[in-house]
Order: sequence, then structure tokens, then C-alpha cells
Amino acid sequence: MHELMHRLWPICRSITGEGVRETLSILAEKLPELKVHEVPTGTRCFDWIIPKEWHIRDAYVIGPEGNKIIDFSINNLHVVNYSTPIDMDISLDDLQANLHSLPEQPDAIPYVTSYYKETWGFCLSHETRMSLVAGNYHVHIDSELKSGSLSYGEIILPGKSEQEIFVSTYVCHPSMANNELSGPCVTAKLAEWLRTRDRRYSYRIIFVPETIGAICYLSKHLEHLKENVIAGYVITCVGDDRAWSFMPSRNGKTTGDNMARHVLKHMAPAFKEYSFLDRGSDERQYCSPGVDLPVSSIMRSKYVTYPEYHTSLDNLEFVTATGLEESYLVYQKLFESIETNCVPITTVLCEPKMSERGLRPTTGKLGSADSGRAMMNLLAYADGSNTLLEIAEIINEPVWELRKLADMLAEVQLLGIQ
Amino acid sequence: MHELMHRLWPICRSITGEGVRETLSILAEKLPELKVHEVPTGTRCFDWIIPKEWHIRDAYVIGPEGNKIIDFSINNLHVVNYSTPIDMDISLDDLQANLHSLPEQPDAIPYVTSYYKETWGFCLSHETRMSLVAGNYHVHIDSELKSGSLSYGEIILPGKSEQEIFVSTYVCHPSMANNELSGPCVTAKLAEWLRTRDRRYSYRIIFVPETIGAICYLSKHLEHLKENVIAGYVITCVGDDRAWSFMPSRNGKTTGDNMARHVLKHMAPAFKEYSFLDRGSDERQYCSPGVDLPVSSIMRSKYVTYPEYHTSLDNLEFVTATGLEESYLVYQKLFESIETNCVPITTVLCEPKMSERGLRPTTGKLGSADSGRAMMNLLAYADGSNTLLEIAEIINEPVWELRKLADMLAEVQLLGIQ
Amino acid sequence: MHELMHRLWPICRSITGEGVRETLSILAEKLPELKVHEVPTGTRCFDWIIPKEWHIRDAYVIGPEGNKIIDFSINNLHVVNYSTPIDMDISLDDLQANLHSLPEQPDAIPYVTSYYKETWGFCLSHETRMSLVAGNYHVHIDSELKSGSLSYGEIILPGKSEQEIFVSTYVCHPSMANNELSGPCVTAKLAEWLRTRDRRYSYRIIFVPETIGAICYLSKHLEHLKENVIAGYVITCVGDDRAWSFMPSRNGKTTGDNMARHVLKHMAPAFKEYSFLDRGSDERQYCSPGVDLPVSSIMRSKYVTYPEYHTSLDNLEFVTATGLEESYLVYQKLFESIETNCVPITTVLCEPKMSERGLRPTTGKLGSADSGRAMMNLLAYADGSNTLLEIAEIINEPVWELRKLADMLAEVQLLGIQ
Repeated sequence: MHELMHRLWPICRSITGEGVRETLSILAEKLPELKVHEVPTGTRCFDWIIPKEWHIRDAYVIGPEGNKIIDFSINNLHVVNYSTPIDMDISLDDLQANLHSLPEQPDAIPYVTSYYKETWGFCLSHETRMSLVAGNYHVHIDSELKSGSLSYGEIILPGKSEQEIFVSTYVCHPSMANNELSGPCVTAKLAEWLRTRDRRYSYRIIFVPETIGAICYLSKHLEHLKENVIAGYVITCVGDDRAWSFMPSRNGKTTGDNMARHVLKHMAPAFKEYSFLDRGSDERQYCSPGVDLPVSSIMRSKYVTYPEYHTSLDNLEFVTATGLEESYLVYQKLFESIETNCVPITTVLCEPKMSERGLRPTTGKLGSADSGRAMMNLLAYADGSNTLLEIAEIINEPVWELRKLADMLAEVQLLGIQ
Repeated sequence: MHELMHRLWPICRSITGEGVRETLSILAEKLPELKVHEVPTGTRCFDWIIPKEWHIRDAYVIGPEGNKIIDFSINNLHVVNYSTPIDMDISLDDLQANLHSLPEQPDAIPYVTSYYKETWGFCLSHETRMSLVAGNYHVHIDSELKSGSLSYGEIILPGKSEQEIFVSTYVCHPSMANNELSGPCVTAKLAEWLRTRDRRYSYRIIFVPETIGAICYLSKHLEHLKENVIAGYVITCVGDDRAWSFMPSRNGKTTGDNMARHVLKHMAPAFKEYSFLDRGSDERQYCSPGVDLPVSSIMRSKYVTYPEYHTSLDNLEFVTATGLEESYLVYQKLFESIETNCVPITTVLCEPKMSERGLRPTTGKLGSADSGRAMMNLLAYADGSNTLLEIAEIINEPVWELRKLADMLAEVQLLGIQ
Repeated sequence: MHELMHRLWPICRSITGEGVRETLSILAEKLPELKVHEVPTGTRCFDWIIPKEWHIRDAYVIGPEGNKIIDFSINNLHVVNYSTPIDMDISLDDLQANLHSLPEQPDAIPYVTSYYKETWGFCLSHETRMSLVAGNYHVHIDSELKSGSLSYGEIILPGKSEQEIFVSTYVCHPSMANNELSGPCVTAKLAEWLRTRDRRYSYRIIFVPETIGAICYLSKHLEHLKENVIAGYVITCVGDDRAWSFMPSRNGKTTGDNMARHVLKHMAPAFKEYSFLDRGSDERQYCSPGVDLPVSSIMRSKYVTYPEYHTSLDNLEFVTATGLEESYLVYQKLFESIETNCVPITTVLCEPKMSERGLRPTTGKLGSADSGRAMMNLLAYADGSNTLLEIAEIINEPVWELRKLADMLAEVQLLGIQ
């Protein structure tokens, strides 16, 4: 994953344009099911309209001494995303109105966008900004805003059931690592694993520009998604190893929410659950009134909460191989757990005579194996009103361990599994 | 309000009689809609019967040395309310059986009533009582119990809707300030404000003797009240500035309860919520089984809980102009909030494109205005299942501020309001 | 009860055989309604089959020096319950495989059973075991496993209603006091009291071997029990005076559970409520899926939680006369409380005029009698939606005290009782 991330790093993505296409084409190399869709500029998507495509070729500022003091080719955060073209001389005073920096993080270049208001601008570290001297500057942005399309990638992996697990990640930020590339990289590895797996549920995995891409996708597939999605996740900010975070769906109590909490409780018990009021990614669309999909999000350090967020410091050092790998494993366990969930129902009244089935020791001494106890607890709650997840929560065992016991019991006909 | 209170202070009110009538007629001066109703002695009201009217002209005790040592004309608490007439010589020993004082508050005259058992008595400070010397006393009570009627005042202010907000306050205590006069004074000012206001709901405001008056009123209007009242409040103990108290309805979860809590949370967050088990005023009747009106009570220092309660120390010094004014403002905000409550429903799927509607800045930088955030939260929960109050609680904003945002959103057709 | 316990103490009970029959016949002396039922070996009971009967006459081990070093006639825990017959010489090394002791409680003889796997063994204190010297031993168990039957006792005490209170206790452990004899002894005394009482509900009281007996009983009476039992209790571990414990039913919120908690809260407020996950007696069967009887358990020191459990230290010193008596009184109060529970409904709207009914003082002074307050609270919640127990919980009064007030109110026609 870290390798893929290095390859995607230098590409200047935005919500439209060649950066997204190049990103999707690299992802498609290992994911043959990935289809790229193009939605033309001007297409209406609910309250939104697909904007013009943005093309950026070069951007720089030349200082009074004739040097390039800001250069897009060094860091693509230097240009305000969706900047209109410009090429002119300008005094420092006038230039200041189009510069963006962070006085409180003087060594970081901020990430600034202006998708829907036509303007231009440059981002730079506050240190650099402070060092600028009065004089004549030259600004140059070789960009273009023209009719084109919005691009997104979609992978459909059919399962035994038409019910779907939905995964959404975004591909619209330029060189940022945790709040961007960690999402598509972990998602790609999950897709690689899922495509070779025997699947109970179908999987729908999309790589979209944030906000406009999610809205565009919903506008085309809302009815289908509402009918089929049983759980969904926005995969973002899954690359560092500082924290574990959970953003519930607006509903907060769907099976998808509860399974995510369950997996985190057993695999990363120190995770922090945020309020839906702290939302910030595409759950804003997926959980909006009338859409109401069961979409939540397991993250590492959540967007907005870490100081490197939306700056040049959210880079390949902040994200670690361990962070990515752990996130992958947690989502893998999450999907396995959803697949393994079921409604177990006992087949006999009263406790069964376990000793005859070779499932536990026959001498009734003090102290019994934990697995024996868990097995009896599973039977005690398998009354058809509880899912395996609900039983796992009652008896405080991981659902994946409990499923093994359920399968043992099913094998000796003590449990029916629905 | 403090002025009105001074005017009402000297009147010797009781549950019937001229004291109530005089009080109502003073209130009517500024409230032309106030109608006084008379219910004859002997009228049955559920389990109760309207008692004889009590008239009190004078009452005193003359000591062995020939001085008036207890004098009703100095403080009307000195006579047990509803005392029968008496005029006789009596030894101190025999007199003691008809005296009431508070050993633990030796400088306070207690307030004692005997509405339904014919007896007579005098109340005095324990200090005075202790100073009485053996000897011959003369007791004189010039009172009368005779057929007449129970009086109450009623104001009906029609609104656009037949649904009603019900307000009940009582006018049956003699000279006591917080637990009596603060109620009718704040209520009168609220009525003055409400009568000139454009009203969504109708308002029914009654000034009744406590208990028997509330029961009498219910016996005449129960069906109408059950059908129309959406929220009601007993306004009492709203004059001091020591504390804020909330007495919920028996149900405890009506809109009227929740709105009162909401207003207190934002305007007086240190308020104390009592249990319905601590009830003591007319919510006892309004919330009784089979009546079940949504009646609760916002108070300052709650009856029974403050040491001055039901004594001569509950006076015009204990009640302050500030205390009255703040109570008025809180009830005003409460009625406004009930009027402003609604069910907002988004008109578009997904988040709307706010930038086009001039409702928030277009540059997607770190940090956004709080009102912008609150607006998006309002839209996120406006799914038609939540009232504005419920959304206000979820996102922890005052409902009156949220209504302003809702109106802005409705103006640009992003929200429907029901 | 302590006396009865002394009489039952020496009997070597097991899940079948003469020990149970002798125990039941002693119990029957004072309980003429007790019927003993026999269920033949080989009878299927859900997943179980009634085993062969176990008869034990003698068992000992003779050491290298010719002394009986382990002797069943001294303590019947010395032989593994359900041991097959044996009579042979054996080396210490080989004998060790059939010995059971507790290294952590070196002076206690453990209680070990092997009902369903044919084997033999001896139990001894770890001290004794450590003192054994190498050499030739002789083991002798004069036992027999043969076709016969499982015995249990049943008492049916009809009441006015066909609805039943179900009591189950067990009679299958040899000489152990808290976790065995306390149960049948307290139950017998409760039955003695109940049989002479005017009963609203019918009582079904069974003395069964644990697990197999409960399952056997359910297999014969399940439909009847499901239809009629409104509350049930497993009476076990009710003899010591160290603690109070509550084991809820699996459902946890039945009237039987709530009444048990209520009685404990008022009579033994320091009681500990366990989770159903800590279950260990016949609630395992009574609350199993598809059986779902409302069976819970009030205990003193709960099985497994006290160090003497399942050892020779759970003896007649551990159990006290006080412990037994208190347990009896709590269950007695529990049954009385269930009988006394009802749905009270007020007969008048608003508060009734109490002063006319001689139920409270007529002078409205500060401070009123607690019983007066409780009476008004009872009326305030007697709206037909609350049981007396629920009202008792709301107003925090014992349901038995509240019933007295309800009866007073019913007598003056202020309350209807359903």
C-alpha cells in the first residue's frame, strides 16, 4: 500500500481532470473490475451541476530578483485548486490578497480550493511569505477551465446475495497522504482481497471526488442503493498510527454501525467515537435526509482533528506502513464479520447434553474451559430473536470467535443458522 | 411588576371572599379581556364542594395588660385563614391550643389555614409567644362564613390555531410575596405582552384559588382542555433571584416539559429539575389520572424548599425586581419558543450547494462560521421526523436561534416548514 | 430448618437412587401434599435420557499399612458420585489418576461427579494426598449402576387463580449445606407456610435432582408451565449469612425479577445482582430458548463465588440458623408481595378531598405525615397503566406498605383495585 501511495503521490488531483483519471488508471492495473465513468460538465445532480474540468499545467511566482519563489512543480499545493489562468506583473501588496498561509503553522503550505468561485491564488508557508520583499512580482498560472466531465471509478463484485456492502473513498486531493491517499490505497487492497474471495454479499466500491462525486453517484444510483445496501463505509484517513476513530452514520444504530463498534472494541479498544455532528466526509451525503444509507466510517486520526490536516505536513512520513496495514486488517475483519453474522437458533429445548457430543470435558469439576462457557452462552441466547452480533455483545466475545463455536454446534445439529 | 405587587400586598386573600375579588379587579385594570367568574357555594366539583365564603373584618388578641398583642390589621397572617368568629376571655393556657408559631424560626409568623374544618386560631412569632405571661386574655375575630361564591379570573386570547397554551396562577394567599404575588404579577405582565402579539396558538390564562379553584376550573372545562391544550404551566414562586427550578408534568416528556427544559438550559443552565414527587401546586390537579394535562412549572426558589416559605418572611424584600423580570423573560422566551417550534423538512436530496445561495463563504478553508455549521446540521436532521426543538437538542443550539436559520433556508427554498 | 438440615445431612444423595428417595420421604413427613414421582431409566427428556440408578453401599481405600485411609462412611464426598464398582490392589502411582484434591484448599475434600461417563474415583483433602506413601493400596467401591428410575417430589397447592408461582429446589448433592440442603429446607418451610394460607395464586413446588431433574420435569409439563407460571424461583444457596445475591431470569425484566429486586432493595439493600451470564443452577433450563419461564433466584452466597463451594467446607457450620431464617422471611415477603400486587385505579378526577375521609390531618401546616404523602403519590400514579409494584418503585415505598394504603383508599371508594 505504501508503494502504491508513493506512485500516486505526485499527481495533482482535483475534483475533475487528468489527475483523477491518471489515479484511477493506476488503481485499475490491479483491479480489472474497476470501470471508469465520465459524467459531462453541466449534468445536474440533485442541487448540484457538474462543473467545468480543471486542467493545470504549470504555476509559479517570480520574485523581484527573478527567481521562482513559489513553484507548483515542486509542490502541487502551491496553487489554489481550480485557479483560473493568470500571467501578469503584480506588486507585493496586490499579490498578498491572493496568497494563503498559516501563521500558526509557519512551515506548512495550506491546501486551499475554490471550485465554485472563479479566482486564482497561491499557497505558501508562512515563513516564506514573511520573507517576501516589496517589489515587482510575476504570477503565472497555466490552467484551463473547460467543458469536460467528472470521472469516477466503480467496482462491482457480485456475491451470493444481491444485498450490498458499499465502500466509498475519494480521489480528489493533490499530494496529501492521510486525508486522501490512505483511503484509495487501503480500499484498493481490500478490493484485491475481496475479488478473490467467496462472497456472501455483493460489494460496491467507488473511487469518487469528495462531495460532488458522492452526490453525482447518489443521483444515478439512489434507488438501487436504498434497496440493497446493508452497510457502508467511507474509507478515509486510514494511514497514520496515532489513533483510531469512529464516525457513526446519522442513524447511529444500524448493523453497519454496531459491527464497526464491535470490531473496534475487540481490535482497537481505545478508539474514539465521534458524534455525527463532527462529520466531514461523504457520510454528509450518504446519510442526508431522504438518502439515509447506513454509512459510517472507521478512521485512524480523523480529518480536522490532527494538526497536519489539509497542509503539506500530511505527507508520506505522517502515514506509516503499519498504520495502513492495521487499517486494512480492521476493515477486512469488519467485512468478514458482516459476512459471518447470522441468526442462530437452538434445535433442542433445555441445555443439550454436551458431554455426549465430545464438545467439553465430562467430569463436572470446578472451573470449565472458557470456550465451553461461551458455547453454553451462545446456546442460551440463540432464541431466534438475537443476531450473532447481538449475542456476541451480550456475552462479550468477538463475533468471529463466536461464529466458530456456532459452526461446531451446527455441525452436531444443536444449532440452526439463518 | 414590583409596583403591582406592592398594591396587591396588603389585601387579605383567601380561597373565597372579597380579597380575591379585589385582587382580580386590580388585575383587570390593565387586562381588559379578564373575566371574573363566580361559582356558588355548594357547587359540586368532582370530589369537592365549593365552600362557604369567608369574610374577615378584624382580629386581635388583648393581653392581660390591656394591649393588642396580636393584631390582624398589622399583618393578615396573624389570623388562621378561614377562622370562625370568636369574642371571649380566655386564660393563656387555653389560648395556647389555638396559637401557631415556629420554634425554629422564632422571628417568623407562620401561615396557617383551616378551610374545611371550622376552627379559629392566631399565628405569631415564636419570640412573641415566648414573651406571653400568664393571665387573662381576650380573643376577638370578627369573621363570617356564609353562602356566596368562589371567584376566579379567566383571560382567553384567541390565536390562529384552536390549540391552546394554558397558564394557571393562584390568588388565594394573604400577604406573601414569592409563594403568591409573584405568580399573578408575572402572569399579568405576560398577558399584557401576549394580548398585543400576533399569536399562533390561543392562550388561556386563569387566576384561581389554589387547589379548589383549579379543581373547579377543571370540572367546568376538562373536555375542552384535554382536546386543545398542547402545553401548560403553573406560574408560581417566580419572584426571588436565588435559584431556578423546574417541576415537570407527571408524564415528564411532553413538548411543554421539553421546551421548558430547553429554555432553562440555555437561559439558566444551573436550574434544578425536581421530581413530580416533589410537586405541591396545581400540577397536582392538572396532571392527575384522567386529567393528564401537559402542565409543568418553571419557578425560582420552589415552594417548601426555602426557609421563608409560608411565613411572614416571604415578603417584598425576599422578592426582587430582578427576580420578577428574569422570570418574565424566561416565560416570554418559552412561549415564543413554543410558537416557533415546527417540523422542518429539506427540499433537496444530499447537501444543497450552499455557495450559490450566498449563505456561506465560498473558499473551503479550515474553520467555518458557527452559524454555517449550525445551518448544515439543521439541514442534516430536517428529515421530517424531528421537530425543530428535537434538532435544537441534538445540535445543542437554542431553538430560537435555529428558527432564524430555518427561516433563512426556507427563504431560499431549501427547507419546507410545517 | 437447621434441625431438618441435620437430619438430611448424612444422606448420600445423587441424581438418582435411594439418597433422593430417603430425602423426599423425610420432607413428606410435614408436607402431606408432596407426591413422589418416578421416571424410568431410559426415558427420553428432550436431549437427555434418564440414566441408570446409582446405588452406593460402601467405598474405601486401604493403605500400605492396612488402614482405611479414605472412608466413604466418614464423609460421603470421598467417593466420586456415580463411581462404578471396583475392588482391587493398585500402586500409588496408578491410584493417583483416580484421586481428586484441591491444592489451593489443602484441608477440603472436593465434590466430584461423573454421571455420564462410567469411571471411579476418590476425593480427599490435599493434605491427606500429600501424606500418601508409595506402596500397595487396595481400592474398594461397593456400588451398582442398574436400571431403575429418577425420583422427584412435587407439591401442588391450588389457589384462587390457575396462574402459578413456581418454586424449584434440588436434592442431588451429598453432604453439602449451603449449595444443597439450605434449598430444600427453606423450601419445605415455605411450603408449610403456604399450605395453610389463603392463596390467590396456585403454587407448584418441586424437589428435583439438578439439571436432569429440571429437564425431566420440563419435558413433562412445559406447555402447562408456559401457560400458567407468572413467576418462578430456584431456591438454592440460602443458608449462610455472608451475602445476598440475585440471579435474574434470562429476560431479566419479568414481574418475578422486578418483585425480587424490589423485596431485596427494601429488605437487603446491599444485595448483589449477578448477570445471567453467571448462572449456574436450574435457571439454565427454565430460561432456555423456547422454555422461557420467568424464573430467577434470590440467594445468599451464590454458588461458585464462595471458597467453601463444592467442598467438604460447605458444611453445617457455614450455614447458620439466622441465614436460613432470613432467607425464609425474604421469600415469604416475596410471595406475599406477588400476591398483593394489583392495578389500582383512582375513582375520582383530581385529588380527592382527603380531609373529609379522616385519612389525614385537616390543618394545612408545614410538614405532613409520610403516610399521607405516600397516599397522595399512590393516587397520583393510579391511572390504570401502572401496577402497584411499578408505583412502589416510582415513589420508593415497599409494595407491602403501599398495599395497606391502597386498601384504606379502596375502603373509602377512592381506589378501585384490579
